[in-house]
Amino acid sequence: MQLQQATSAQLQQWERELAEEYARFKARNLNLDLTRGKPSSEQLTLSDSLDGILKGNYQSASGVDTRNYGGLDGLPEAKTLGEQIMGVPAANVLAGGSSSLTLMHQAVMAAYYFGLSGPDSAWQKAGKVKFLCPVPGYDRHFAICEQMGIDMINVAMDSNGPDMDQVEQLVKNDPDIKGIWCVPKYSNPSGVVYSDTTVQRIAALGKIAGPHFRVFWDNAYAIHDLSSNPPQLANIFNLCEKLGTQDSVLQFASTSKITHAGSGVAFMGASAANLKGFQKVLGILTIGPDKVNQLRHVQFFAKAGSLQEHMQKHAAIIKPRFASVLKHLQAAFGDNDLGAWESADGGYFISFDTRPGLAKEVVRLAGEAGVKLTPAGATYPYGKDPQDRNIRIAPTVPTVEQVDVAMQVFVLCVKLASVRQLLK
Amino acid sequence: MQLQQATSAQLQQWERELAEEYARFKARNLNLDLTRGKPSSEQLTLSDSLDGILKGNYQSASGVDTRNYGGLDGLPEAKTLGEQIMGVPAANVLAGGSSSLTLMHQAVMAAYYFGLSGPDSAWQKAGKVKFLCPVPGYDRHFAICEQMGIDMINVAMDSNGPDMDQVEQLVKNDPDIKGIWCVPKYSNPSGVVYSDTTVQRIAALGKIAGPHFRVFWDNAYAIHDLSSNPPQLANIFNLCEKLGTQDSVLQFASTSKITHAGSGVAFMGASAANLKGFQKVLGILTIGPDKVNQLRHVQFFAKAGSLQEHMQKHAAIIKPRFASVLKHLQAAFGDNDLGAWESADGGYFISFDTRPGLAKEVVRLAGEAGVKLTPAGATYPYGKDPQDRNIRIAPTVPTVEQVDVAMQVFVLCVKLASVRQLLK
Repeated sequence: MQLQQATSAQLQQWERELAEEYARFKARNLNLDLTRGKPSSEQLTLSDSLDGILKGNYQSASGVDTRNYGGLDGLPEAKTLGEQIMGVPAANVLAGGSSSLTLMHQAVMAAYYFGLSGPDSAWQKAGKVKFLCPVPGYDRHFAICEQMGIDMINVAMDSNGPDMDQVEQLVKNDPDIKGIWCVPKYSNPSGVVYSDTTVQRIAALGKIAGPHFRVFWDNAYAIHDLSSNPPQLANIFNLCEKLGTQDSVLQFASTSKITHAGSGVAFMGASAANLKGFQKVLGILTIGPDKVNQLRHVQFFAKAGSLQEHMQKHAAIIKPRFASVLKHLQAAFGDNDLGAWESADGGYFISFDTRPGLAKEVVRLAGEAGVKLTPAGATYPYGKDPQDRNIRIAPTVPTVEQVDVAMQVFVLCVKLASVRQLLK
Repeated sequence: MQLQQATSAQLQQWERELAEEYARFKARNLNLDLTRGKPSSEQLTLSDSLDGILKGNYQSASGVDTRNYGGLDGLPEAKTLGEQIMGVPAANVLAGGSSSLTLMHQAVMAAYYFGLSGPDSAWQKAGKVKFLCPVPGYDRHFAICEQMGIDMINVAMDSNGPDMDQVEQLVKNDPDIKGIWCVPKYSNPSGVVYSDTTVQRIAALGKIAGPHFRVFWDNAYAIHDLSSNPPQLANIFNLCEKLGTQDSVLQFASTSKITHAGSGVAFMGASAANLKGFQKVLGILTIGPDKVNQLRHVQFFAKAGSLQEHMQKHAAIIKPRFASVLKHLQAAFGDNDLGAWESADGGYFISFDTRPGLAKEVVRLAGEAGVKLTPAGATYPYGKDPQDRNIRIAPTVPTVEQVDVAMQVFVLCVKLASVRQLLK
């Protein structure tokens, strides 16, 4: 379909054919879901030996009775697991509860209301607080900002990560900017892996920003590779150490998409000063994380290399689903400008751009034909995609067959909406 | 020892004898700990079948795959467990993560910064915020207030609970008062169980307080009885329903001192409106609690009556320790005014009052003789016991033999400090 050259008669003809096809799908009463980035049941089953793995021994190798209170920063062995996932030295890792989202919220809350370096450093003391939000991005990051009344400024993403000229310019000129959200590897939703230069420039932001500026480095897909030769993300912790900007970055990760999504272990990686400031706040709201569950995870991955082997099993399950999405997109839009997407080598999403002004309509059409998609706009602060283009496709939960049908509907809806737009 | 009638020579004689005894204890290089209210290893072992209890089946009876994301308010079956512990209908229970302290912090945070009934209800909007703190009380409650800059007002406790004349007077006359901390059963540290009249009057506070006032009802020791005929706490949820004040109370409990202290399940019990307002805030910081661990707990207590049976096993372990403390106190101070205490029928603490001005000195002396006590003042807001009298004794962790030695040292230190005070 080359819409540009098409005559009005040709467009009308296409509209009729597409509408008929759409009606046939609708008549099938489908109930398919491409919304949230959740592991499938098959993936979860890979970790089912977690329960019972302790065989009655709740003592850690480091001598901790994991059943009792205490250990605000987590089990020493769990920190080492965090090191393996994040590439941050265990001494700089805090091992927490089951949710990295909670750790991120707590970190923003700590910095905003109480200060990571004492009460005077609390963002709220300085008045207005702004965050840079590379877009498209993760709706739950934006929700944290919105809850706390933090102004969000969109920053464009390209194939190297955030537009760093724009980021540096903004950070340099506006002291109210206190943070930036980053999903540096297999970015949610675009799948981009930040380039070495981008990581280097983000590590250097601490040199031009104020002392209370923090990069929120959500490395949610750190080891969630789909290819056997995965792209390498530069180690921002090491770069910061070299630059003396280690206090400007807070890193997060979790095992949620490694073991069981709702009952994993979350990690924070940070400088000694940041960990100290954070724990001062954290110590008021908890006596410590679930160390028993941490011990289970440590034992689950006790064998050297088992983390990588385990992730390959996930990849084997996810890959056919990603392949199906990409096959349909390529077939439908490979030779025209109705849609653009990036081929992700890992993570949980494929980000799709319609022609401007069509994302909402495509999501509506798909929904009415029984294919649930993440609401258009969700990948932008305040739910507002300025061009109404971006749709996040999350194919991990449905079966390969379901993804195949859902994608037939999806590309059809994109075509139908695109043709109708030109007919208006 | 009747200090009032003693001559100066008699006092000097006692001081010499006590100091000699103290020196002998010191020479033993003891290392004993009567500080935090933690379960002993023996108690924790009662629940060791938790890990592995699922036998590979992570599906709940209600059809939830507990391994995946979701379920902000917890597993339906876990809510029923909360009902059994708190006496709040399951529909009014939120089952959370491992820490009720975290739930309390989140509830105060939600009410303070974001509002439990929309942004306009946020306490911070109204300016100054004050809490009533029955004293002696729980240091971690006070720490939450201190962190958020909430002014704390001491309220006296008697054998029926907080002085309700004082509470009602304050609440009626000061709209800045937005909350009160209550540990209604086996109060931390005094062991008091609030009387029916007191509970009734607390339930009625919602009638005289403003709409955003909340009672923080931390029912941490709801089923932690030591006697076979335990005192009954009136059901504040039912009382509130009758009075139409159900929005004025937030209840909390957990299995931390029922199963494993660091990896239990915490509960919040509240009106539908409060739960809705709270979840709106909670949903920003988590996708849901660890439902796998909730399922473990549900299965652990699946047999009717197993919760009560289980608590009797705890009681059997704790009772000799409490008995040892009380025996030593009775023997040393039963016939004089050197100390006062309450005989708790449950919970984790015995609260001891020295003569005014001696708590810090007793804690210091005991510490130097190798018996660690909770810092004097900890049971008061800002760590300031106005009369420097109260010491919290937590005897659950040491063995009975250790409690026996520690209490020998304790009573000796009280005597020595008391005699020396008169000699000054």
